[in-house]
Amino acid sequence: MGRVIDDRDARMLLSQWCEAGDRAVGHRVRERGAVVVAEEILAGSSPLPASAGAAGRVPAGTSLDQALARWLAPTQSTASRCGARYVIPGEGEWPTQLDDLGDGAPLGLWVAGAGNLRLLALRSLSVVGARSATAYGELVARELAAHLAENGWLTVSGGAFGIDAAAHRAAVAAGGATACVLAGGVDVPYPRSHADLLARIRESGVLVSEAPFGAAAMRHRFLSRNRIIAALSRGTVLVEAAVRSGGRSTVREARLLNRVVMAFPGPVTSPMSAGCHVVIRDEGVHLVTSPREVVSLVEGRMPPADEGRREPVDELGWREKRVLDSVPVRSPAPLGSIARIAGLGLTDAMSALGMLDALGLVERRGDGWTLRRE
Amino acid sequence: MGRVIDDRDARMLLSQWCEAGDRAVGHRVRERGAVVVAEEILAGSSPLPASAGAAGRVPAGTSLDQALARWLAPTQSTASRCGARYVIPGEGEWPTQLDDLGDGAPLGLWVAGAGNLRLLALRSLSVVGARSATAYGELVARELAAHLAENGWLTVSGGAFGIDAAAHRAAVAAGGATACVLAGGVDVPYPRSHADLLARIRESGVLVSEAPFGAAAMRHRFLSRNRIIAALSRGTVLVEAAVRSGGRSTVREARLLNRVVMAFPGPVTSPMSAGCHVVIRDEGVHLVTSPREVVSLVEGRMPPADEGRREPVDELGWREKRVLDSVPVRSPAPLGSIARIAGLGLTDAMSALGMLDALGLVERRGDGWTLRRE
Repeated sequence: MGRVIDDRDARMLLSQWCEAGDRAVGHRVRERGAVVVAEEILAGSSPLPASAGAAGRVPAGTSLDQALARWLAPTQSTASRCGARYVIPGEGEWPTQLDDLGDGAPLGLWVAGAGNLRLLALRSLSVVGARSATAYGELVARELAAHLAENGWLTVSGGAFGIDAAAHRAAVAAGGATACVLAGGVDVPYPRSHADLLARIRESGVLVSEAPFGAAAMRHRFLSRNRIIAALSRGTVLVEAAVRSGGRSTVREARLLNRVVMAFPGPVTSPMSAGCHVVIRDEGVHLVTSPREVVSLVEGRMPPADEGRREPVDELGWREKRVLDSVPVRSPAPLGSIARIAGLGLTDAMSALGMLDALGLVERRGDGWTLRRE
Repeated sequence: MGRVIDDRDARMLLSQWCEAGDRAVGHRVRERGAVVVAEEILAGSSPLPASAGAAGRVPAGTSLDQALARWLAPTQSTASRCGARYVIPGEGEWPTQLDDLGDGAPLGLWVAGAGNLRLLALRSLSVVGARSATAYGELVARELAAHLAENGWLTVSGGAFGIDAAAHRAAVAAGGATACVLAGGVDVPYPRSHADLLARIRESGVLVSEAPFGAAAMRHRFLSRNRIIAALSRGTVLVEAAVRSGGRSTVREARLLNRVVMAFPGPVTSPMSAGCHVVIRDEGVHLVTSPREVVSLVEGRMPPADEGRREPVDELGWREKRVLDSVPVRSPAPLGSIARIAGLGLTDAMSALGMLDALGLVERRGDGWTLRRE
């Protein structure tokens, strides 16, 4: 093979060949690296079970060049057309809490929108619940998301009808950021009638999906999508849910990940609160009755204030910290010089500067960068 | 002193001299007997603290004859006028679970109504909650009390507006028995506008109070009354309650007594459910969402079916068991002969026969009694 692929290319290929969240694939990628796993599949020598990885999607004898032409080139052109970026583990925008998923962590995430996913997700809560929500449930979701927005918390949800949409809308209306984790591709507005809502979410927040472009939102993808909603945020709040409800799968994932899991009670006469009552009673989920309680429960699990106030800078990765140390206090330095001092490539240094900029730690002046004063 | 008083007389006197539920009085009565305590008070030699027992109500130098004339005779005449009986510990109608209150057990209970308090309370649940209940709370209370009535459970409550009244009314409407534990005397309809409801409760159930005749329903009496509601029943259900609410004191008493304590959740937008949410979250109270759950939680704490089905006869006191053993299978025996065989006085034997009759274990035939077939 004359051409070679890097980790990013390999993950893009694998995400098209394999089902999202397949733990057998995730395990092998963690053991051998994505490049090896992709090459094994192309060579027809993959030890993955038939149920996992590229099941029938990669014809025997496909060459690397053929694969790049068939799967990578169209993806890259769609990405640039719809303004989406592929974020992979270890990169600046990767939310490291997703690594808690272990073998079930996504291979990568397609992200579209103005927000920086990792920074936004530092203070984030998932608000989930029934599609066929009641007026009561939508009211509770709206008040919660508005409170989160006003207090600098990201509202994470799934873009569906009912509770999801009420939460996204209220976050946007309150001038806050919201992340919508889609079950299909980020280029596939789903549900279709939420195309406008999704467009508005992109303006200050992000659309997120591990599914390849064009992937339809199918039932099994909703369930695997829910683990990302749960893992991305510090806590999950179930606002309304029938006894059988997708929201309960998000609760289950969040509990497995040791996140703070909460539910709002409701009238016992409403079937849409019955699922909330079940998880409160039988699954040890916290009963919450106000947005303030939600935030204080989650903050109760965050490092306490008397250990020193935790600043955004404490959450930075090693690349960002190194870049921050390389940015001069006064006279602006150009990207190239900062990257050299930090010992990083231009792309990584640029991505780190973007994050530091978003955090208000550095500022661009002319062609260079300095630390931001106060 | 020429005349003597018995335990019953002494308790009637003490209940007029001392505040209901005074533990210092209760302790001394358990230690020395009610007769001694009453005699000590009359003699001005009572070691009870000034705060307890007859504080200023019994003038120094009151003779026993004066006391009987002033306190006992009017009580007995009111009792016969309003058809109330005084039930004391050890008697056939005394609900032995009240002994769980220890020094705080009532000295005696005034009972008015067709039901046998002890038998009714064998399968009983307290349904309590806010006076200013919402339509939602009253609906929940009604459905719960109706279900209890249909399944042979006594609904215990306090006769107040709101949840109490909804529960009593639904129990009566469903043809079930209900017990109303009053804070004032059983001869004082309180609230006044519930006079009709209280009259209907007497027809198949009972009015109960430890307060002497004529006692007004005052704040401190509501709180001490609540311990009787909690102790009388196997479990307490809080249907609706504000954060500050009398119903929460009943919950507290029931928890101290190790009864099953339950609460219904409601909309978080309703202040009348906020107290329920607090006790569920902070006081380990069971969240319940249906009458069926309530009954199965309480039955889960009763002896399991596989230890042999528990019959009413298992709950009988020694007097009733002895009388039951003395009743012939075929030819009816008169009361006198049954009492002699059982080794009991006529009154005790009669009271035991009444209870056995109510339980369907014996039947009257002509002037005598036999065991009931099947």
